Amino acid sequence: MIVDCAQYREGIRQDVGPLDVRTAAARAKEPGGFVWLGLHAPDEAELEEVGEAFGLHELALEDAANKHQRPKLEDYDGSYFVVLRTARYDDEREEVEFGEINVFLGSGYAIAVRHGAASELGSARRRLEARPDLIEVGPAAAAWAILDKVVDDYEPVAAGLDNDIQEVEEEVFGGESDATQRIYFLRREVIEFHRAVQPLIAPLESLEKGIVVQVDEHVQRYFRDVADHTRRVDEQLHDQRDLLTGALEANLALVTLRQNNVIRAISAWAAIITVPTFIASVYGMNFEHMPELDSKIGYPLALLVMLAAVLALHRFFRRIEWL
Amino acid sequence: MIVDCAQYREGIRQDVGPLDVRTAAARAKEPGGFVWLGLHAPDEAELEEVGEAFGLHELALEDAANKHQRPKLEDYDGSYFVVLRTARYDDEREEVEFGEINVFLGSGYAIAVRHGAASELGSARRRLEARPDLIEVGPAAAAWAILDKVVDDYEPVAAGLDNDIQEVEEEVFGGESDATQRIYFLRREVIEFHRAVQPLIAPLESLEKGIVVQVDEHVQRYFRDVADHTRRVDEQLHDQRDLLTGALEANLALVTLRQNNVIRAISAWAAIITVPTFIASVYGMNFEHMPELDSKIGYPLALLVMLAAVLALHRFFRRIEWL
Amino acid sequence: MIVDCAQYREGIRQDVGPLDVRTAAARAKEPGGFVWLGLHAPDEAELEEVGEAFGLHELALEDAANKHQRPKLEDYDGSYFVVLRTARYDDEREEVEFGEINVFLGSGYAIAVRHGAASELGSARRRLEARPDLIEVGPAAAAWAILDKVVDDYEPVAAGLDNDIQEVEEEVFGGESDATQRIYFLRREVIEFHRAVQPLIAPLESLEKGIVVQVDEHVQRYFRDVADHTRRVDEQLHDQRDLLTGALEANLALVTLRQNNVIRAISAWAAIITVPTFIASVYGMNFEHMPELDSKIGYPLALLVMLAAVLALHRFFRRIEWL
Amino acid sequence: MIVDCAQYREGIRQDVGPLDVRTAAARAKEPGGFVWLGLHAPDEAELEEVGEAFGLHELALEDAANKHQRPKLEDYDGSYFVVLRTARYDDEREEVEFGEINVFLGSGYAIAVRHGAASELGSARRRLEARPDLIEVGPAAAAWAILDKVVDDYEPVAAGLDNDIQEVEEEVFGGESDATQRIYFLRREVIEFHRAVQPLIAPLESLEKGIVVQVDEHVQRYFRDVADHTRRVDEQLHDQRDLLTGALEANLALVTLRQNNVIRAISAWAAIITVPTFIASVYGMNFEHMPELDSKIGYPLALLVMLAAVLALHRFFRRIEWL
Amino acid sequence: MIVDCAQYREGIRQDVGPLDVRTAAARAKEPGGFVWLGLHAPDEAELEEVGEAFGLHELALEDAANKHQRPKLEDYDGSYFVVLRTARYDDEREEVEFGEINVFLGSGYAIAVRHGAASELGSARRRLEARPDLIEVGPAAAAWAILDKVVDDYEPVAAGLDNDIQEVEEEVFGGESDATQRIYFLRREVIEFHRAVQPLIAPLESLEKGIVVQVDEHVQRYFRDVADHTRRVDEQLHDQRDLLTGALEANLALVTLRQNNVIRAISAWAAIITVPTFIASVYGMNFEHMPELDSKIGYPLALLVMLAAVLALHRFFRRIEWL
Repeated sequence: MIVDCAQYREGIRQDVGPLDVRTAAARAKEPGGFVWLGLHAPDEAELEEVGEAFGLHELALEDAANKHQRPKLEDYDGSYFVVLRTARYDDEREEVEFGEINVFLGSGYAIAVRHGAASELGSARRRLEARPDLIEVGPAAAAWAILDKVVDDYEPVAAGLDNDIQEVEEEVFGGESDATQRIYFLRREVIEFHRAVQPLIAPLESLEKGIVVQVDEHVQRYFRDVADHTRRVDEQLHDQRDLLTGALEANLALVTLRQNNVIRAISAWAAIITVPTFIASVYGMNFEHMPELDSKIGYPLALLVMLAAVLALHRFFRRIEWL
Repeated sequence: MIVDCAQYREGIRQDVGPLDVRTAAARAKEPGGFVWLGLHAPDEAELEEVGEAFGLHELALEDAANKHQRPKLEDYDGSYFVVLRTARYDDEREEVEFGEINVFLGSGYAIAVRHGAASELGSARRRLEARPDLIEVGPAAAAWAILDKVVDDYEPVAAGLDNDIQEVEEEVFGGESDATQRIYFLRREVIEFHRAVQPLIAPLESLEKGIVVQVDEHVQRYFRDVADHTRRVDEQLHDQRDLLTGALEANLALVTLRQNNVIRAISAWAAIITVPTFIASVYGMNFEHMPELDSKIGYPLALLVMLAAVLALHRFFRRIEWL
Repeated sequence: MIVDCAQYREGIRQDVGPLDVRTAAARAKEPGGFVWLGLHAPDEAELEEVGEAFGLHELALEDAANKHQRPKLEDYDGSYFVVLRTARYDDEREEVEFGEINVFLGSGYAIAVRHGAASELGSARRRLEARPDLIEVGPAAAAWAILDKVVDDYEPVAAGLDNDIQEVEEEVFGGESDATQRIYFLRREVIEFHRAVQPLIAPLESLEKGIVVQVDEHVQRYFRDVADHTRRVDEQLHDQRDLLTGALEANLALVTLRQNNVIRAISAWAAIITVPTFIASVYGMNFEHMPELDSKIGYPLALLVMLAAVLALHRFFRRIEWL
Repeated sequence: MIVDCAQYREGIRQDVGPLDVRTAAARAKEPGGFVWLGLHAPDEAELEEVGEAFGLHELALEDAANKHQRPKLEDYDGSYFVVLRTARYDDEREEVEFGEINVFLGSGYAIAVRHGAASELGSARRRLEARPDLIEVGPAAAAWAILDKVVDDYEPVAAGLDNDIQEVEEEVFGGESDATQRIYFLRREVIEFHRAVQPLIAPLESLEKGIVVQVDEHVQRYFRDVADHTRRVDEQLHDQRDLLTGALEANLALVTLRQNNVIRAISAWAAIITVPTFIASVYGMNFEHMPELDSKIGYPLALLVMLAAVLALHRFFRRIEWL
Repeated sequence: MIVDCAQYREGIRQDVGPLDVRTAAARAKEPGGFVWLGLHAPDEAELEEVGEAFGLHELALEDAANKHQRPKLEDYDGSYFVVLRTARYDDEREEVEFGEINVFLGSGYAIAVRHGAASELGSARRRLEARPDLIEVGPAAAAWAILDKVVDDYEPVAAGLDNDIQEVEEEVFGGESDATQRIYFLRREVIEFHRAVQPLIAPLESLEKGIVVQVDEHVQRYFRDVADHTRRVDEQLHDQRDLLTGALEANLALVTLRQNNVIRAISAWAAIITVPTFIASVYGMNFEHMPELDSKIGYPLALLVMLAAVLALHRFFRRIEWL
C-alpha cells in the first residue's frame, strides 16, 4: 500500500496527493530533486512493480519482501539498501514489538518499505518538509529523516524497559512475590531489542564518517546525531542486561534467605508446642508414686507451667528474631 | 560416489548424466565454462583419483578425507579449498547433526565433496542451472550456490533450537518437571552449532569484499547475501546461548522457590497434626483431679476442640498461603 | 544563568564582573585571547541568545538543552562541542548524583553550560587564571581546566564506592544482616557511573594525541594527564563491578551456609527434647507388669534419666559443633 | 642428552648416528643443507656448549634452560627462537602433563631442546626424512615437522578431555554421586591446557602469512595447516570451558533438586507415622466416658484404623510423587 | 632519601658513594655516559630539588609525588616518565602489598623514585654494573634493569597466589570449614594485582618494538624479555581469577550438598526415635481389652520390639547412605 509519495525539489514538496509508482519513477529521473515513496506492508506484486519501475536489485527486493532481516546498509553500485528494525514497547505485556523498514536509496529516489505497526513515517516526512535546507541535499535527507525517526522511537522502548526493571527491583527487594519469571522475560526482551539495535551502529558510523553514501559534512552531522543516539541506546541496553543478570542472582539469594526465615519460624513454633507436649507426657507416666498427681492443684499447675513454657519460648524466639 | 557431474558453459549445462572423473578433468581444461563435480562420502581411492585428475593439493585432499574440520577458506595459488560444516536439526532427539562439505575451486572446475546426510546439493545445482547469468561467472558461481544452500539450511536449525528454547521456558516457568538436563543439553547443541557457524564468517567476509577469490562486484553481492545470513544465524546463536544460561539460573531460583513452598506446606500440616496431639496428651495426664475427665461430654468436647483446632489452623495456613 | 564571563588575553583575565552575552560575543571576535562564558542551568531563551550571538550549531544547542547525553566530543568545522557527565557521591544514600557540562569551543570562545549540582567550575577558572602560560594557549586551555575539574571530581566518587564496597564486605562476612540489596544497588551505581565515565576515554585519547582539536604538544600533555586519570577511574570501576558480582555470589554461599547452621541447631534441639519425650511415653504404657512403675524411686529416677539424656545429647551436639 | 643429530642436504639425511655438537656446528656452516640437532633435558653444561658452538643468543639460552615458558616465537636478527608447550593426557588421573620444546632456528641449523616426556620428536624427524621436497626448504622444514608433531599431539588431549566431560555429564545427570570436584578439576585442566595452546596461535599465524621467517608459499601452506589445527583445538577448549561452567551450574540445580526430593520423602514418612501416633494419643486420654474403650473390638479396630491411615497416606504421597 | 647515585660511563661505574643531586645533574650534562639517581620515599622538597636540577616536567613530578598511579610510559619531548607498580606477597595475611617506582629517563640521566617496601633496586643496579655492554647503551639500560627487577618480583607474588589457590581448593573439597571468605579475598587480591600488571603490557610492547624510546635492536630484545614475563604473569592472573570464580561456585554446590547430607542424617535419626515412640503410645491407649497389657512378658517384649525397630531402621538408613 502506498502511504505517501511526492517529489521534493528546490527545498519544497512538489505534489499534494501520493503519486502512483510509474509517475514517481519518471519524476525520479528528472535532474534536481528526488522522489520519496513510502509503502506500508506491500504485497509481492506491488514490490515487484516498484522494483521494476525503479530498477532495484533482485537481492535487495528479496530482502525487502522477507521480514526478520538483520539491520544493515548495502551498497549496490551507488544505490543503497538499508534495513532497519523498528521497535515499540507494549508496556502491558512487557514485550517489545518489532517491525521493519527497508529503504532503497538511489539517485533521485528514496523508497521506504515499512512492515509492522511501529515507527509510522508520516512525522518523519513532515519534519523533513519543514527543512528546505535538508531537502536540497537529496535522497540522503530522506534516509536521515527515516533513521532519525526509527532511532528516536528506540528511546521510549529503552525507557519503558528501564521503568520495568525498576519495578522488578522493587518486587525483588520489596515483596514476597516471586520475580524470577518476570526478570527472565524482561531480560529476553532486552536481548532481542539489543539484537535489533546493535548491528545498526556499524553502518551508522560509516554514514557518520561519510565512508558509504557521499554526503557533505553538513548532513554527516545529522547522521552523527543519529549514530550517537543509537550508541546511547546500545550502551543502555548493555547495562540493562547486566542489571537483570544481577537481579536474577540477587533474587536467588533472597529466595534462599526467605527460606531460611521460614525454616526458623517453623522451627520456633515446633519448639513452642513440643515443650508442653513433653510436660504432658511426663504426667502421663503411670508411676505409682508421683506426688504431683494426687495434689488438687496438680492439674492447673501443670497447665500453668505449660503456658509459662510457651510464653517463655515465644519471647525467646522473638528476641533471637526467629519469629 | 559421484552424485552428479556436468560441464557448464555459456550459461547452460552441457551434459545430462554424470561425467566420469577423467572426462570431467579433460573438460575442465577447455577454456570458457567449468565443470561441477559432486561427490558424496567418497572412499580414499575415489578421492585420490579426483585429486590426481584435477591436480589438487595434498594438504587439501588430506583435509577432505578427514571429517571434523574447522570451516575455512584456503588459497592454493589461485585455486581454493573451502571447508563447510552442514547442519540438520533432529527435533525428536533435540540434537544437531553435523556433516561436512569440502569444495575445491580451480580455474575450470568446482568439486564438492560431501560427508553426512545434511544439505544435499541437488537443489543448489538446480538453482544455479536456472540462472545462466551466474553460470557465466565461472566456478565461483558453483561455490556461491553451495554456500547459499548450506547457510540456508542453518536457518531451520536455528529456528528449531529457538522453538525448543521456548518449550524449555514453558517447562521452567510452567510445570513441576525439572528442565535442568534439557537446558544443559540444548545449550550444548547451541555451543556446538555456534562452533560450526562462527568460523565461517571471516572467510565469507573476505569473499564479500572480493579479497580472496577474484569475482566481479555482481557476484560479490551474492556472497554478501550469504555472509549476511551467516551473521544473522551467528548473532541468533549467541543470544540463544545467553538465554539458556539465564534459563539455567532462573530454573535454579525456581527449584529453590518450590522447595520453599514444599517446606511450608509440610510444616503447616505438621502444625495441624501437632496441636490436637498436644491436646490429647494433656488429657492423657494422670492427675487425680481433672474435672473434665469425669464429665460425660468431656470426650466428645475434646474431640470437637481438636477438630476446631485443625480447622482453624488449616484456615490460618491457607490465609498466609502456606497451603 | 550566567555564572561568570570574562575575556582572557596575554595570560591574564581582562574583566572583573561577568560580561553579558553580547559583549562577550563581540570580544570573542577580537584577535588574540578568548572569552570564557560559564552558564548554569540556562533556560531555553538564554541558550538561544548565546547560540545566536556565538553562531553555535543547531544540533549542538539541542544537545545542550537536553540532559542525559552521552559523553562525547564533536567537531563542527573547527569548532567543537564536548559533553561531559559530572558525578558526586551521596554517601548517605549510597547514590551517585549525575550532572552534565556541555562545552562549546570555537576560535575565541569557550562556553560551559552546566546542569546539576556537581563539579562547580569556579575553582577550574581560578586554577586557569593562576597559569598565564596556559591562558596563552587559547580556548583549549579552558577546555582542559573544565575536563580536569570534572575528572578530578570522579575520584572521590570512585573512592566513596570503594569505601562502601569494603563496608559491604564486612557486612557479608561479618554479621548476620543480609547484604543482598545493598550489594545489588551499589553495583547498580557502579554500572551507571561506569556508563558516565567510559565513553569519555575515546575523545580524551584523541585530544591527547592531538587528533581533533589542534593544540601544541605542551597542552597535549595536560590532556594526557586528564585521560590518564579517566582510565584509572575506568579500570577501578571495572574491577568494582567484578568485585560486587563476586560479593553477590559469596553472599549467596554464606546465606546457604547459615541456613545449614540454623537447620543443625534446630535439629539438635529437636533431638534433645524428643528423647525424654520418648522415655516418658514408655512409662505411659499401660502394661500390667512394669516393675519400675511400682518402685518408689521410679518417678524421680525417670526424671533423672531424662535429665541425663538431655545433658548428654546437649554435650554431644556441642562437640560435633551443631550447637 | 643428544637424542639425534644429522645433516640434511639435497633432500636426504647425510649421517647415520648422532653427530657431536662441534661437528654439527661445523656442518651447519656449510652452504646448502642444514643440521637438525635434537636434545632431551640437557644439563646446563650441554646447553652452554651448544650455545657457544652455534652462537645462540644469551636470552634465548636462558629461556631454554628454564621451564614453564610461555609459547612464543622470537626473532634474533634472522635467527629464531620458538617455545612450544607439549601436552599429554593422563586419563587415569584426569590430568594434562605438560612438557616443553625450545627450537633454535638459524641459517644452517635447527636445534630442538625438549623437556618432559610428551611429544617425542623421533617420529617428526622420520616424517621429514620421508619428504625430500621439504628437506630442501632448509631449517624451516624441521621447525614445521616439530610444530606439526606438537600440535598433532594436542588433539588426543582435547579428545581425552572431551571424553571425560561426557563422563562427567553422565555422572551429573545420571547418578547420585557428586560430580562437583571432578567438574572443577577437569575445568582447571582445560584452563591450563588453554594457556599452553592459545598463545601459540599468534606466532603460527605470522608464520602462516610469511611475516616472520622467510619461507616460500609452498611451506607457508604447511604452517597454515598447523595453525589451523591449533585454532581448532583452541576453539574446542574454549567451548569445553564454557560447557564445564554450565555443568557446574546444572550440577548445583540438581543437587538442590535432589535435596527437595529428600525433604519430600522425609516429610511424607513423618506424616505417615504422625497420624497413627495421634490416634494412639487420643485413646490414651483418661476420660471416664469413652465408649470405644470398653468395646471388645475397640483395640483391634484402633489398630486397623491406624493401618488404614498409614496405607491411605502412603498411597496419597505416592500419587503426588513425594515417595 | 637518596639511596644511591653514580655516573656510568664507558661500561663502568665512575663513583663510589652516592653523588648529591647538584653534582649528579652536572655530570648528566657531560656527553657520553649517564647518571643513575635512586631515591626512596623522597619528601616534597627533595623531589622539587631533583626536578629543578634535571629540568623535569611539572606533571611528571606531580605524579611522582602522588602514590596510587596507573602504570604508564609517557613521552615528554624525548625524555620519558615511567610509572611502575611493585608488588610483594604477604603470605601470612594473604595480601599483596603494592609499592610504586617512578622512573625519569632523559638524555644523560635515569632517576628512580621508589615508594613502598617492595622491589628494592640495589640488586638491579648491581646486575647492570656487571654488564658493561648494556651500560654503554645509556639510560635505557637503567630503565631495563629496573623494569626487569620489578617484573621478576611479580613472579613470586603470582606463585604465592597460585599456592594459596591450591590450599583453598583443598579446603573446599577436603574439609568441613567454609572457604567462602578466603576465596573471596584471594580473588580480590588477584583482581588488584591484575590491575597493577595489566596496564604495563602496552607500554612494554611499545618499548619492545622500539616505538617509543629509541634503542637499538640489541636492547629491544631485553625489553621483549621483560614484556614476555609480564604477559606470562598477566595470563596467569587471568586464569587465577577464572579459577577462583569457579571455586566460589563449586564451594556453593558443596555447601548445598553438605546441607543435604545434614538433613538426611537428621531425618534418619528422627525416624529412628519416632517409631518406638509410636509403639509406646499404642500401649499407652486405655482400651479395656488389650491382651498384651496383661501378659507378663508384654513390657519386656514391647521394649524388645522398640529396640529391634531402632536397629532395623539404623541399618536401613546406613544402607541407603543417609547415615
